[in-house]
Amino acid sequence: MSTPATQPAPAYAVIFTSHRAEGDKGYAEAAAEILALAQAQPGFLGAESVRDAHGFGITVSYWASLEAVEAFKRQPRHAEVRTRMADWYEGWSLQVCRVERRASWPPAAAG
Amino acid sequence: MSTPATQPAPAYAVIFTSHRAEGDKGYAEAAAEILALAQAQPGFLGAESVRDAHGFGITVSYWASLEAVEAFKRQPRHAEVRTRMADWYEGWSLQVCRVERRASWPPAAAG
Repeated sequence: MSTPATQPAPAYAVIFTSHRAEGDKGYAEAAAEILALAQAQPGFLGAESVRDAHGFGITVSYWASLEAVEAFKRQPRHAEVRTRMADWYEGWSLQVCRVERRASWPPAAAG
Repeated sequence: MSTPATQPAPAYAVIFTSHRAEGDKGYAEAAAEILALAQAQPGFLGAESVRDAHGFGITVSYWASLEAVEAFKRQPRHAEVRTRMADWYEGWSLQVCRVERRASWPPAAAG
């Protein structure tokens, strides 16, 4: 995954927290497609994603503006895929956040 | 970990992304201590943390105000423990964010 610290300072972070339901049901393919769509979207700066062995995961995507976040939400294929989320997740939460401060180490990675 | 969706709507999220270095070196004990300190801190609303088998992790903590975030940064034991971060991480980044919008599913979990 790309590291946002090497990109321009992100203005917005979208935190998506989720518990996967049992079975793939097309999830892996859809997740890869959505990441590729995000990467092609204007204002996308990077994403980082971790999921543990219990199916709990956090994905953070970084964006140049709130307009870029909203445009991706409206992206037709993204909206279509989201109608299947109840097949894939036992639960999820999403927070759209404005980045106020950042720090990173080693310093060479600072954006 | 507590689920922030069941708490009052968080005003701030702190996203801490990290790659663990080899060896524990007191990390597990310190991490548990810091979480307990956070939970005792005014304005702490919850935290969610995931680390994968490769040592890459994301922790998001939620806070009632920017003042609460800053007070925890200044907490003396927290500040002392942070001086050892280079022992524990190959790299990390931290973003302090203001939560602008949130959604969750199932709807019963909405805060």
